[in-house]
Amino acid sequence: MSDAIRERLAWVAVDWGSSQLRVWGLDESGEVLVRGGSDKGMLTLRPEDYEIALLEVVGDWLPASGRVGVWVCGMAGARQGWREAAYLPVPTRLDDLAQGAVMPTVSDTRLDVLLLPGLCQFADVTGCDFDVMRGEETQLAGLVAREPGFSGLVCLPGTHAKWAWLERGEVKRFATYLTGELYGLLAGQSVLRHSVADDGLTEPGCREAFVAAVREASARPGEFARLLFGLRAADLLDASLPAGEARQTRLGARLSGLAIGLELSGVRHDLSASSVTLVGGEALCERYALALEALGHASRRVEGEAAVLAGLGLARAGT
Amino acid sequence: MSDAIRERLAWVAVDWGSSQLRVWGLDESGEVLVRGGSDKGMLTLRPEDYEIALLEVVGDWLPASGRVGVWVCGMAGARQGWREAAYLPVPTRLDDLAQGAVMPTVSDTRLDVLLLPGLCQFADVTGCDFDVMRGEETQLAGLVAREPGFSGLVCLPGTHAKWAWLERGEVKRFATYLTGELYGLLAGQSVLRHSVADDGLTEPGCREAFVAAVREASARPGEFARLLFGLRAADLLDASLPAGEARQTRLGARLSGLAIGLELSGVRHDLSASSVTLVGGEALCERYALALEALGHASRRVEGEAAVLAGLGLARAGT
Repeated sequence: MSDAIRERLAWVAVDWGSSQLRVWGLDESGEVLVRGGSDKGMLTLRPEDYEIALLEVVGDWLPASGRVGVWVCGMAGARQGWREAAYLPVPTRLDDLAQGAVMPTVSDTRLDVLLLPGLCQFADVTGCDFDVMRGEETQLAGLVAREPGFSGLVCLPGTHAKWAWLERGEVKRFATYLTGELYGLLAGQSVLRHSVADDGLTEPGCREAFVAAVREASARPGEFARLLFGLRAADLLDASLPAGEARQTRLGARLSGLAIGLELSGVRHDLSASSVTLVGGEALCERYALALEALGHASRRVEGEAAVLAGLGLARAGT
Repeated sequence: MSDAIRERLAWVAVDWGSSQLRVWGLDESGEVLVRGGSDKGMLTLRPEDYEIALLEVVGDWLPASGRVGVWVCGMAGARQGWREAAYLPVPTRLDDLAQGAVMPTVSDTRLDVLLLPGLCQFADVTGCDFDVMRGEETQLAGLVAREPGFSGLVCLPGTHAKWAWLERGEVKRFATYLTGELYGLLAGQSVLRHSVADDGLTEPGCREAFVAAVREASARPGEFARLLFGLRAADLLDASLPAGEARQTRLGARLSGLAIGLELSGVRHDLSASSVTLVGGEALCERYALALEALGHASRRVEGEAAVLAGLGLARAGT
């Protein structure tokens, strides 16, 4: 770590997930000077462990004297995390997240830590259902920071994929689909685990198999559990499938398409209006873009890391 | 084992599943004289282990001299089982299963073992999809043995729930739903595992929660993955839920209802015609009956063990 970087460090951005800790050191202009992280996610930590886990990453970045603000989103603010930052109920303005931030106790006098809250939604007569998010709200805030007054439908694909309806910078409602976790359980631990593999849709025929599966599951969502077993049966009986590994990637592409197609069937009434803004990593967002395109819907992508940093920066600017 | 029983033993019936071995000793009239079993299912055995595993259960039942027929359905006839009994493609008459039986090599001269085949279905233009069953076809045969010329829709709930369309004793087509496995993975290994428990729908409010979930998932199958995450969110936010264990059983009942409701949504076009015949154990069939009733459909139950024995007896009589 050069002294030059240490001198320019203005603040630290943290995305503290269930299984991963990701950290960035930024200068006053928002430029990333240094990045780091570890696998010390919320699930592995007791409250007293957080400061140590953070210092393992940023200890070497900090100046000898003076205080540095550390802005944290994600599971560190959960009840079972570092300190609870209570959920803000929707509708919520996204430039207001810092109002719900809490400061955990820290020993190192160089650290000013703020944990941002997540969002929650209560069931109501309009058809909204109970829901929670923690971490994704900061990416949504980043979208609003980059595009003030943003209105539209936003999807953040992942283990628990979030769909959020934004109006002029405000989250009106949101919905979480367990899609990524469902896919992971089926691909890794079900009877299908011997039949499927993931190659990122690069093998010949995999994109086509993915697209066909998206269309099938979204057209017949009630048959999802049957289409799943059909992968096993096709592995045993379908002579048109290639052999060996190519067979597994083909069926893996199909499994992914079924899971995402089921999700898109759930949000289909909201898809007609406008283009979907996907926020996240390149590979998964491309897969969602392909699935949306297969159903005739446009999308565009905002890089997930840029959104987190912009969201944490917006919270910092708001205090 | 009394000599009287040993003298009356006419044949042995075996249901050899992936994880369980179930065995019955019967007299010529079909009366069960003795029953046994072990956890030596197909997944734990190499081909050379099957005879030993069988003799561990029936060795003491066999007469000193003479041969006893052993009729076996289930995974012992799979490619990775004792010896492969190739699938019979549908449509298939159920009184014909013995035509596809194979005899594995055995050392003990008192044993005449026959492994019954499963059924398979190839994809075709009428909308049939690839599918396989192994074991359930024998229960269907048992239904036909008890009710010759049976026509109607039959459901065999389980890890891989089977729906079969029968016409005058013939399986025309069938469909497998991965419902039980999906439920098991979600209840045991997903983020929902801390929120749910199963009490067999006995706690107050559980039947109602189950029925409501069946209706929701069958009406909005595309939202299945959202309704799943909604269980986690309700656990965090829903003040109307009871506390502690009662909360978990309530949410567990709801999870079960969502999984079964999704399946019923898939077969709903076939449900309107007539009553569904459920074949299987009491608890799970009662749950399916309750779910069907919630959607306005009648059902009746045929005991699963009786169906297996009648099916194996029909195969024996046919040779």
